[in-house]
Amino acid sequence: MNFKIISADLLDEMEQRYRAQFINSIHGFKPANLLGTQNKKGQSNLSIFSSVFHLGANPALVGMIVRPHSTKSRRHSYENILATGFYTLNQVHKGIYQQAHQTSARYSELESEFEATGLQEEYLLDFPAPFVLESKLKMALELKEVVDIKINNTHMLIGEIKWIIIPDDSILEDGTLDLEAIDSVAISGLNRYHQTTLLEQLPYAKAAK
Amino acid sequence: MNFKIISADLLDEMEQRYRAQFINSIHGFKPANLLGTQNKKGQSNLSIFSSVFHLGANPALVGMIVRPHSTKSRRHSYENILATGFYTLNQVHKGIYQQAHQTSARYSELESEFEATGLQEEYLLDFPAPFVLESKLKMALELKEVVDIKINNTHMLIGEIKWIIIPDDSILEDGTLDLEAIDSVAISGLNRYHQTTLLEQLPYAKAAK
Repeated sequence: MNFKIISADLLDEMEQRYRAQFINSIHGFKPANLLGTQNKKGQSNLSIFSSVFHLGANPALVGMIVRPHSTKSRRHSYENILATGFYTLNQVHKGIYQQAHQTSARYSELESEFEATGLQEEYLLDFPAPFVLESKLKMALELKEVVDIKINNTHMLIGEIKWIIIPDDSILEDGTLDLEAIDSVAISGLNRYHQTTLLEQLPYAKAAK
Repeated sequence: MNFKIISADLLDEMEQRYRAQFINSIHGFKPANLLGTQNKKGQSNLSIFSSVFHLGANPALVGMIVRPHSTKSRRHSYENILATGFYTLNQVHKGIYQQAHQTSARYSELESEFEATGLQEEYLLDFPAPFVLESKLKMALELKEVVDIKINNTHMLIGEIKWIIIPDDSILEDGTLDLEAIDSVAISGLNRYHQTTLLEQLPYAKAAK
């Protein structure tokens, strides 16, 4: 295997979209989630995000990075979360990844990503944000904090999990969710969708005596 | 498929380790990277992290969450980064995921995770942090910012990519990295390792006219 070194100078010289594809893929696989929000008038918004990450188990906190000045659906998502304080994350599975990806298109102000993609809005337990009916893992979140990342004008949203809806039999004995049982997909780069196969569940690592 | 609702109250009642496994797996698949650091005396440290995420392509920024008060290797990683300002990320592939996982064990102050796991230290271009010889995707990073997340006493490290080492033929025509060509693994929960299969690379999404 021959290796090459790509320096920061070489990164600077890359064409903008090429660099975005490259840098978005170098840290590895990412989760695929649909962010559901609505504004104060009840108009809904749906947008795919791969920048969702674990922030803490107690309290149960989920982080995500938003770039509010990109597409309309992402900007509206951010504005809606600030306005209402609530949002949903709906995991993307093999049966809906194409529709999920389509939410990243630049729809006009009047179009709903639900209508445009055919994914169905679902409202549950009076929660003020839409869920995706077809998703098999849905989370209701309350915004706890917005951290402004000044270095590149992005924001980290910190949400606390209010409740989770999952299939009865998808939790393994030790508490881990069996993501393959619900056909979850992984994303790489900006637009590659992958299915997975378990290699191994390793035991809690201990130092040899 | 029968679904159940898990409320925040039910999360609170879960046994601590069970809840950690559960909450760590609900947002989906995560990347697998080994964080390489050294202290001012040149003593090295290696620790697996699944909380690495894309923060921006221009400048090329990588984010990661650290919990400094957990295991020795993670605490040392954090202290070393603050002391030197530099670190490496080395992607985990199918051939080394078991050794990579083993770095999460609680080794004593005097033990090196490299020696304990058999992964080999590599020093390149006078960079003041060790790379993992066996990894097929290595990044050299400079710390740009530490964001304290007060809600749960974690920290977000923001690093700028100085250079990347990858196999010659692993970049696709559009700039995306072919993660399957370098056998990258995905993590779910705290200890499940997965290989992937590409479902599809979708085109840039456009709204229908």
